[in-house]
Parts: sequence; structure tokens; C-alpha cells
Amino acid sequence: MKQILVLGAGLSSPTLIRYLLEHAEENKWFVRVGDFSEEIAQKRVNNHPQGEAFKFDVYDDEQRTREIRKANIVISMLPAKMHFLVAKTCIRFKRDMVTASYVSKEIKAFHEEARTNGIILLNELGLDPGIDHMSAMQIIDRIKGEGGELVSFKSSTGGLVAPKYDNNPWNYKFTWNPRNVVLAGQGGAQMIRRGMYKFIPYHKLFCRLQRIDIEGYGEFETYPNRDSLKYRSAYGIDDIPSMYRGTIRRPGFSRTWNYLVQLGATDDSFVIENSEDLTYRDFTNSFLRYDKTKLVEDKFAEYLDIDPDSFDMYKLRWLGLFERTKIGLKQATPAQILQKILEEKWGLSSDDKDMIVMQHEFEYKLEDKYFRITSSMAVEGKNNTDTAMAITVGLPVAMGCKLILGGKIGNTGVQIPTLPEIYNPVLEALAPFGIHFTEKKEQIDEPNGH
Amino acid sequence: MKQILVLGAGLSSPTLIRYLLEHAEENKWFVRVGDFSEEIAQKRVNNHPQGEAFKFDVYDDEQRTREIRKANIVISMLPAKMHFLVAKTCIRFKRDMVTASYVSKEIKAFHEEARTNGIILLNELGLDPGIDHMSAMQIIDRIKGEGGELVSFKSSTGGLVAPKYDNNPWNYKFTWNPRNVVLAGQGGAQMIRRGMYKFIPYHKLFCRLQRIDIEGYGEFETYPNRDSLKYRSAYGIDDIPSMYRGTIRRPGFSRTWNYLVQLGATDDSFVIENSEDLTYRDFTNSFLRYDKTKLVEDKFAEYLDIDPDSFDMYKLRWLGLFERTKIGLKQATPAQILQKILEEKWGLSSDDKDMIVMQHEFEYKLEDKYFRITSSMAVEGKNNTDTAMAITVGLPVAMGCKLILGGKIGNTGVQIPTLPEIYNPVLEALAPFGIHFTEKKEQIDEPNGH
Repeated sequence: MKQILVLGAGLSSPTLIRYLLEHAEENKWFVRVGDFSEEIAQKRVNNHPQGEAFKFDVYDDEQRTREIRKANIVISMLPAKMHFLVAKTCIRFKRDMVTASYVSKEIKAFHEEARTNGIILLNELGLDPGIDHMSAMQIIDRIKGEGGELVSFKSSTGGLVAPKYDNNPWNYKFTWNPRNVVLAGQGGAQMIRRGMYKFIPYHKLFCRLQRIDIEGYGEFETYPNRDSLKYRSAYGIDDIPSMYRGTIRRPGFSRTWNYLVQLGATDDSFVIENSEDLTYRDFTNSFLRYDKTKLVEDKFAEYLDIDPDSFDMYKLRWLGLFERTKIGLKQATPAQILQKILEEKWGLSSDDKDMIVMQHEFEYKLEDKYFRITSSMAVEGKNNTDTAMAITVGLPVAMGCKLILGGKIGNTGVQIPTLPEIYNPVLEALAPFGIHFTEKKEQIDEPNGH
Repeated sequence: MKQILVLGAGLSSPTLIRYLLEHAEENKWFVRVGDFSEEIAQKRVNNHPQGEAFKFDVYDDEQRTREIRKANIVISMLPAKMHFLVAKTCIRFKRDMVTASYVSKEIKAFHEEARTNGIILLNELGLDPGIDHMSAMQIIDRIKGEGGELVSFKSSTGGLVAPKYDNNPWNYKFTWNPRNVVLAGQGGAQMIRRGMYKFIPYHKLFCRLQRIDIEGYGEFETYPNRDSLKYRSAYGIDDIPSMYRGTIRRPGFSRTWNYLVQLGATDDSFVIENSEDLTYRDFTNSFLRYDKTKLVEDKFAEYLDIDPDSFDMYKLRWLGLFERTKIGLKQATPAQILQKILEEKWGLSSDDKDMIVMQHEFEYKLEDKYFRITSSMAVEGKNNTDTAMAITVGLPVAMGCKLILGGKIGNTGVQIPTLPEIYNPVLEALAPFGIHFTEKKEQIDEPNGH
């Protein structure tokens, strides 16, 4: 019997834990699930005979040591900053570890020690990062193997509401952490195009859009997603002349969102002292000039140069920005107030389902001809537990865990799934769960993205 | 003979040191000037019989202790972060201290200790902060004394080139630290209007202008200057319904500057790796979309919505943004590159003179009538050493020092010049040097600023 220790049973864990439990008997696994809330851990294990739930506190050194020592492999679904402690103990007792989080500086520093101890610390094995790495690397390696020269790579991902439940004027609902959505893009973005770096400040990010199509789902838009440049070395394509990463939204979202950015409503750098007693209308007005003759709506439209009769203006009114509802949050930043206003309108109903969309576009030269491969994935959630986010984050982790326990991964140290021995079997194992990419290849006259 | 120790002989010190030396004999002062560069200290003292220059290193504990112990009063014109060490030693040996810098948290913490030791640490006694505090408080206290109720207070300051030397299309030259000018406003601004807080994000700051007139100098514009709110408590006007602080420029400056902000060229948060080999034109292009058919100039005008034939566009071309000059700076941020481009165009010639302008506008109610007082100051530099900046920063410090040595200030502890016993004699002493305010009082139908 092999012991799998899952730490963290929050929103991204249910599909992962269910998979492990359902395949426990055939694989001779025993699945122990620890969470700071024992109740949540119990709910996930649901009295399964090959599972056990318990209260877990990562900062309890004695408990952490004891639990990790007992396990054959450790899956950390804890908040990212806690992985460090888990990894340290895993190294001490030579236990493999899997996470869906970015490799932090602290984790990276464990590489040599993990190698010496013969264990793997496999990270970035969720959706984004995770499925994006694996699906991209599989095609990049194939193009290289055929002798092709990659000239452009674009990769975009988005968490959205599934089409059937997409019934608001923004075509958007919060399917994940609302705070991250409100603050998205605040560092600006960097990319490269035809060998020239391109820089976009936050206040211009939502004006620099690209259109994409995903078959069966129609049209989407993308806005630039942070620093695309660092992915070049991770993917072994340091010299690629054009590289772009984007965040996917439905058409029109970014243009209207930009008005909130322009207004200053996403600012998280200062507190509005009297926020509790202000109304949504006061909040909106606090970014506008005083004018005793004009309505807040008119000042707003004028300041941001919006046609008062436009659909944009309707979407902004629909949010409630001009209503006389009390904010009721003490000492809140503008971003926190905006989040509250949005949560009332963009919250998921209990029967709503979410959707993950991802698309890569590769352009390459092979024997003096240019080709474009477009590779797209769309996954819809099953219910409000097995959301598309939980499915796409959790199942890759489960598959990685299975591979490691089966002795199928030769590499040790700190790794991400850009290696064929990881991405090939994981992608193959994900396909039956509807996590698969539809590929389109066409010959083109000249590269477009490049 | 009283020993005055002046630490720091940089650009803001020459007028201060000359004043002290010229008045040394009549007051029985001996003026010791220490600077990290002995050469600069020598230049300032210029072999004056009642002065002495020496190399000073604030981090040399032994030297700092010895010098401060010998002095009757210490003037610190060092970089602001170094005042802390000087203040600590001043407290130890019970020496009064004067600076032209903002009271830092560290300095503030010395208040009780300074009081116990019977010394004054008098700060914010330069131009801004300094003359702004004194000239405003004098009028605020007078209005209060008459029984008036202040309903609005606006205060703006600017460092500009003197009209005779104002010969470029921006009507602006660097008369002080260029880096601060490039980064100005990046935290956004806060103010209050009719009891409502108003918040302006950085990317909207240079669109929220006010016009002012200064007699004999014509029209100016102001853009909001950081957090106006905190000045309410410093000035004892916590309940004032309207309060604004601004930075003064010539009309048209802010609108054109805003295009550089919008572009992203003032960003100081990341490094452009290959900056050394790029041209100014490449730099400008790095913020614009790739387009193989369009000129950088055309993309720029289109992206920022500028009429290509406008004066704005001329001002931007005039800076050299589209020229093929090599940047030549390694690993520079956009802000550092922009600073280099601007320094070539906005640098002062050796015979250029600078100018300081300041204006306060007070609106108040007295016996059911409304009044407005406008109080304006303009000071032009005499030459490239006695600049308007050096005059307006240095002379208040000199006057403060004289008052303290003459036993004219009763208060002890950490102070700023908002007290009548300081601002009245200092302002009186400054007037003969051309540092004086012209006041205009008028009855108004209703408050405008409010």
C-alpha cells in the first residue's frame, strides 16, 4: 500500500482527490488528506475506505514532519508561500513532491539537494502553469524534431463562465479569486515581436487586444499577460523572434474594463478613510472633478470619453457604479470596493458552470515554406465542485503523482513539466477526461504573429 | 564667537553659506562647512576669514561626534536620509539643528528627547517644504484671528526657467533633480473638495489641471501634487472642506507630458535589457504595436490620439523621440532613458537662470460675506550658483539659524515653521532678498475653489 499525502483541500483539490480515491484500489494507494479545516478535508474524502481526512497545520513542525515521513509522496495544494516548508521536510525524508504552483526562488534553491537525495520536486503541474507548458512543449519539440524553425509563439488562457450560463452583459463571471481579477495586469506586460521588445504599461494594457477563435465556442479577445519574455528560456526557444502570452476574455470585456482602470477604481495602493459610509455613487464620484451642475453619470462619460448611449456605458451602469448603495467596508482601498461591487454582479450562481479556454498559435518555417499550427482546448465544469478550474488544475497533478509512484519519471531535482517523459504520458492520460487540444495546421504565405 | 556647522555644500547650499559668511562678523559667527567633497566646501567658503572648509563623512562616527560637539548649531543640507545620524549626535550633545527636509519618521521619534534636552530640531525650513508652510500659516492665522472661516485652500509651487531664458517649445528646463521630474506624480494624488475626497491615478494626473495667473509673469497651469490631505492637520485646518496642492508649469506642459506617461516612457519598474544598443526611435517604438507598413511617428500619433500636425506632436518630435541616436545606457529603465533624452534638450545653459513661483489661494467666510485672498511669489535666480532654488531653500535656513542663535525661538523638540514665533521673523527677514508675497484680496459672490 502506497501512502499519498494531499495537503490542502480547497477549491482546486476536489477533482484531484476524487481521482486519487477512485483509483486507489487498483493502484494500492491510501490517500490521506490534510487541511486546516478538518470539515473540508472530510467532505473531500467522503468516508472513502481508502482515504482519511485530518486537520493539518503546516506550521506545526511536529505534525508536518510526522505526516510527510509516513507518506510515499506528497502533493501540496496549499497556498504557494507554504510549499517551501513542505519541500524542506520532503527533502529531509527523501519524499517526492508535486505542486501546481510556480517554482519560487526558495523552491528553486532546493534543486541540487533534491537531486542528491534522488527525489523529484515537480511543480507547475496544474493548468496555467501546467497544461500550458505541456501542450506547448509537445508541439515545440515536434516542430524542432521535423527540422522546423519557430518564428512566432502565442499562448493564451482564460477562466470564463460556460456559454450556457453566460447571461450578463460583460460575458464574464468570477470563476476564481476575484481579487486577482481586479488587480490583473498592474505590473504591465512585456513581449517580443520580430526581435523587438514591446512594453505595455498597465493603463494601456486593455487597449492592446488580439482576437482569437476557438472552434465551437466562437470569438474571444486576449490582453497581454505579464512578462512573456521569461518563457523563452523555460521552453528552450531563447532566440524566438516573436512571443506573446495573453489572458482570454469574451469580446468587449477589456474595452469596458479599461474605463474602470482609467478611472482609478482598480487602485490598491491607498485606503479611502471614510469608505464605510460612502455609496457606490460617491465612490465613482471620488475619481471625478467636482461640478455642481453635472450628474455623476455625465461627468463619468465625459471624463472617460464614453458615448453615454453606448453598450459600454450600459455595462458600467449595470454594475451599479451610480447607485446609492452603501459600501459598508471599513478602510477599504478602491480595488477592494470595486471587488465588492463586482462580486454582487459577477458572482456565480450555485448552478452556474465555468469554462477554461486555452489556445496556442505556432508559426514556423520548414524547407522555405511557412506553417501555422493552432492548438485549442476548452473544458467546461461539471458542477460547482468539479469546476473546469478544479478539473484542469487537479487532474494533471493526479497524473504526475501516478507517474512518479509508478517509477516512470527518471529526472530528479526541481522540475517543471517541459520534459517529454512527463508531458507525453500526462497529456495522454488527460485526454479521456476531455482535457485535449484540437489542432489545426495550415500553410501560410508569411508569418502573421511574427 | 559662535560656531555654525554646515554639513553639505551641494547645489542648495551656496546662498545659505554666503549669507552666513557675509553676516559672520557682525554676529560673531564662525562658519565651518563640511562636505564629502572638500573641493566643493572650499569653493563655498572661498577663503573667507570667518569660515573654514573641510572634508566631512557623516558615516565617520568619530568625526561626526567631534564636529557636532564643537558647534553651537548644526545645519544639515545633506541628503535627507543622513539627517537621522546628525540629529542623533545633536541630541547627545544638546545642539540645535536646522534642515530644509521633510520630517522623517525617524526624526519625529526624537521629539520628546529633544524637548528634554532643551534643543530644537527645526525641519522643513526651505522652499517647499518651508516658505510654503510659513506664508500659508501667516495668512491662515490672520483669517482665523479675524474670525473668518476658511472654506478652501489651494497651494502650488513650481521650479521653472526664468522668462528671459524660456526659449524652448516646452517652456521648461531642468532646474533641479531631473529624475524627480521624470518620476513626478507616480503615486497619484489625493485632495478634498466640498468635503468629498478626490483621487486621481497617475495616468490621469496630467489631465486634471487648473489655471493660475501670477502678476507680471502671466498664465501658468498646475497639476495635483501628491497627498494634499495630510497638510490639513499640519496647518491646523482639519475640517477644511476643500484643499488642493499643485505643481506649477507653463500652460501646455502637462498635456504634452501626459503623452509620455500614456506611452509608458516614465516607467521605472523594469529594465530594458538591450537598452544600450537601441536608438531613441527604437525606444519609442518599443511601446507601440508592430506594424510593417507604418512609420513610428504615425503609430505614435495614432496610439496616443494626437493630431500629427499639432504643436504637441512638434514638442514630442523636438525632444528627439524619433531620432536614430544610440541610447548608450546599459540595463536602463524607460524612465532613465527618457531622462537622458530630456537632459539633452531641457538642460540649463551656463548663463540660463531659473525661477521659483508659488501661489496660495484662500477662500473664507466672514460675517456672511465671502472673500478670496491670492498670495503669490516669484523669485528669479541671480546666476548659476545663486539659483532661485538655492536662494529660496538656503535663506530660510539661514534666517532660522540666526533666530535660534539669537535665542528668539522658545519652542523645543522637533518643529516645522508653522509657529508664529518662527514664520513671522523669518518671512520678515526674507523680504529684503526679494522673497515676498504679493497679496490680492477681493470679495466674491461664492467660493470658487470650494
